[in-house]
Amino acid sequence: MTEPAMANRGVALVIGVGAESGLGAALARRFAREGLRVVVAGRTPERLRSVAEQIAATGGAVAIKAADATSEADVADLFDEADRDGDLALVAYNVGSNVAASAQDTAPELFERLWRQNALGGFVVGREAARRFSQRGRGTILFTGATASLRARPPFLAFAAAKAALRAVAQGLAREFGAKGVHVAHIVIDGVIAGEYAATNFAEYARSKGADGVLAVDDIADAYWALHCQKRSAWTHEMDLRPFKEPF
Amino acid sequence: MTEPAMANRGVALVIGVGAESGLGAALARRFAREGLRVVVAGRTPERLRSVAEQIAATGGAVAIKAADATSEADVADLFDEADRDGDLALVAYNVGSNVAASAQDTAPELFERLWRQNALGGFVVGREAARRFSQRGRGTILFTGATASLRARPPFLAFAAAKAALRAVAQGLAREFGAKGVHVAHIVIDGVIAGEYAATNFAEYARSKGADGVLAVDDIADAYWALHCQKRSAWTHEMDLRPFKEPF
Amino acid sequence: MTEPAMANRGVALVIGVGAESGLGAALARRFAREGLRVVVAGRTPERLRSVAEQIAATGGAVAIKAADATSEADVADLFDEADRDGDLALVAYNVGSNVAASAQDTAPELFERLWRQNALGGFVVGREAARRFSQRGRGTILFTGATASLRARPPFLAFAAAKAALRAVAQGLAREFGAKGVHVAHIVIDGVIAGEYAATNFAEYARSKGADGVLAVDDIADAYWALHCQKRSAWTHEMDLRPFKEPF
Amino acid sequence: MTEPAMANRGVALVIGVGAESGLGAALARRFAREGLRVVVAGRTPERLRSVAEQIAATGGAVAIKAADATSEADVADLFDEADRDGDLALVAYNVGSNVAASAQDTAPELFERLWRQNALGGFVVGREAARRFSQRGRGTILFTGATASLRARPPFLAFAAAKAALRAVAQGLAREFGAKGVHVAHIVIDGVIAGEYAATNFAEYARSKGADGVLAVDDIADAYWALHCQKRSAWTHEMDLRPFKEPF
Repeated sequence: MTEPAMANRGVALVIGVGAESGLGAALARRFAREGLRVVVAGRTPERLRSVAEQIAATGGAVAIKAADATSEADVADLFDEADRDGDLALVAYNVGSNVAASAQDTAPELFERLWRQNALGGFVVGREAARRFSQRGRGTILFTGATASLRARPPFLAFAAAKAALRAVAQGLAREFGAKGVHVAHIVIDGVIAGEYAATNFAEYARSKGADGVLAVDDIADAYWALHCQKRSAWTHEMDLRPFKEPF
Repeated sequence: MTEPAMANRGVALVIGVGAESGLGAALARRFAREGLRVVVAGRTPERLRSVAEQIAATGGAVAIKAADATSEADVADLFDEADRDGDLALVAYNVGSNVAASAQDTAPELFERLWRQNALGGFVVGREAARRFSQRGRGTILFTGATASLRARPPFLAFAAAKAALRAVAQGLAREFGAKGVHVAHIVIDGVIAGEYAATNFAEYARSKGADGVLAVDDIADAYWALHCQKRSAWTHEMDLRPFKEPF
Repeated sequence: MTEPAMANRGVALVIGVGAESGLGAALARRFAREGLRVVVAGRTPERLRSVAEQIAATGGAVAIKAADATSEADVADLFDEADRDGDLALVAYNVGSNVAASAQDTAPELFERLWRQNALGGFVVGREAARRFSQRGRGTILFTGATASLRARPPFLAFAAAKAALRAVAQGLAREFGAKGVHVAHIVIDGVIAGEYAATNFAEYARSKGADGVLAVDDIADAYWALHCQKRSAWTHEMDLRPFKEPF
Repeated sequence: MTEPAMANRGVALVIGVGAESGLGAALARRFAREGLRVVVAGRTPERLRSVAEQIAATGGAVAIKAADATSEADVADLFDEADRDGDLALVAYNVGSNVAASAQDTAPELFERLWRQNALGGFVVGREAARRFSQRGRGTILFTGATASLRARPPFLAFAAAKAALRAVAQGLAREFGAKGVHVAHIVIDGVIAGEYAATNFAEYARSKGADGVLAVDDIADAYWALHCQKRSAWTHEMDLRPFKEPF
């Protein structure tokens, strides 16, 4: 489906693919466009199918896999599929569940759920990727972070605690596996991402930001791709991304 | 048991009290010495009893309570006991389970266990304390952090992810409840704490550090007490503590 | 002038003493009250005299010295005076010139002036203190920092660049001289300090903050004193101080 | 010399160009290769000439300008030259003087010199660039930082104080001019850069790092170029770059 040179670029596994307008889908499209075979994973098969069809329609090589990233068994299956030819090159963990709630009103169940999806899943996936990549001496693992990864502000305490843990996962993996050739990077997305989610949850706010005041998923994808292309003499382990108008 | 002026200082609840040589015990002794009634909580009743007897022997007012900090029910009981007269003044969350393990060899169960003990328990306790304190417009909540709260280094990825989450809890509570008079502080303990734990787990290392090269629990307790005494015009939300020789 | 036990506490040198209502004066009063002989230094002799008279009136031992902290010769003289008996114990560098200006409108002269007063002076003073203290194996050096030490926000770019440099000075000295028994700490004051300066420059703002919404200098002085009292097994190298209502 | 489409990419001004093997030269070569007219500035005309000849030989459009970045007059002349057609698009401030010295042995003159070259020059250049770019609503300003920008470690206190100040300059400009379309980014280079400087000053160390254990200037240049290409909906304000083996 893709030409040989492109096939050499290997496989990209994107975990956390939902709406077509979302970041996961944009990453998958971008990696496919660059010639990687893409495996898109998420919890909702219909959404995965819709994203995959779009990619296939433009000539990309794509497969879908429903998986729960917090399940070791699911993650093992997922990697067996994505890495069946031993050419997995890139894993993006893009699960970013968020719920706004004051600490006062946050039940331990919510605190735990956000941690499972953001942090535990990131650990299970990252560990599996690092194990495989470190044996080959190459591979890229990208984690989608948020402002909250660095700073806990109401009403996002539970989200922040989860994202701070994920950041530690990224940092710990980077330090343990860097010298073995595994590039782990954590991207701090500071602002609202354009798309269905923002339109549903922050419509007014997103509109108030004006042109380019929210992050375009394709512009974010540029940064992920640039990270994957970095030579190992000059790797980035953390970078921020925010709209030009975003206060910080 | 204590003189009136001292009784006015209210109750201190110390969660995470184990060995007599540990930090939890030192905090309890210190708060008792300052005239607070102390409730010591932990998972092992014998250890609690032993610490309590020591405090009582020096004239301190003390009660013990076995509790699992990750259980909402236990935590509710614990606060009902500690705050039965509505004069709880200070809560120290001092649970610091740590296990050294490479990421490669860290099972999701370990990753979860450390998060439960360090982060989830901190959240459940902190939320309950903040709810009570914010209604009265005063109260101090102190969280014991570690180097790993700020930075994930092998072989402590799981511990770091848990402690980073706890730090977010502390920060989120500080921001949500500060203006309501609740003082939340996070103490970053950077180094080995002297005592039974170090003697068992890092004997050689601790010895190599020489005099004052490991943190004395009573010196740490000074800092916790100083934080509780701060006036609300000048609160500290985060401070580090390390031996004078400790590289950082 | 002071009783023996107190005399044993040695000398405190406070650099950056101006108005009686300012932090420098409060630090000097506090250290005198704790029994240290105090040397107050600043650029305006009348202001120093006024602060000294107040301290002497309450029985404190105090001397004044006009000095430019950016001048090696002045600083040498100052330390010769303060440390004439070899018992200098504590140095507080409290010079905090600030000027609000957009970057656009900041002349290199202003950029340089703020750096000289905040950073270069801090370096010259800190180096001299560290040299003396490291030979004796003890001594405390405290640097007054600000929100801007950590973060550059308009209209305070020049101030932030100066304070960030001062923070590096504090950190570098702490690392070079810590193992030699010299305790260097950097205090991040995050908020408006009550007093003449605020009354003149931010009257409306300060009023809007309400009771304890601005930092009381005596409450700040508590923290400086607590830092000086820390045992070397558990030193703080950086702490923040902010009013309970201050957003952060 | 370059084809029209490339000419449209405007002018890149690289300040801090020295040896052909250095980062400044690599940035200039890269920007020229991407089709920008390049103005290379530095203190040594012979070195500028040598770099310019190399660029011209490969078909790049290049001009040289000797300038002292700490002089407002020089900087004004430099920008008049580089921006004579009003199409300056990119400024890279790459001046990175460093001297290893213990704080004990650092004279105020050295402390000041490093600040002038790293921080004051960066401010004067950055302010001029921001003024021009903000009127047009676009333009990129890139600052070369270092590990020391974030952390002061012996024997680099003076360098760290200078680089921390430069980081504040970058951050302050980013915040003041971002909403006006000016992209300011600070690159934290964490490790030894390959080239003449390392070969002269850290030959043994650089060799010990092995293949890709030091940063290749062309790999760094990739990251600078990627930053310039970022769309304004997703800008990076800070990123790190380090060799895959570098501990951090």
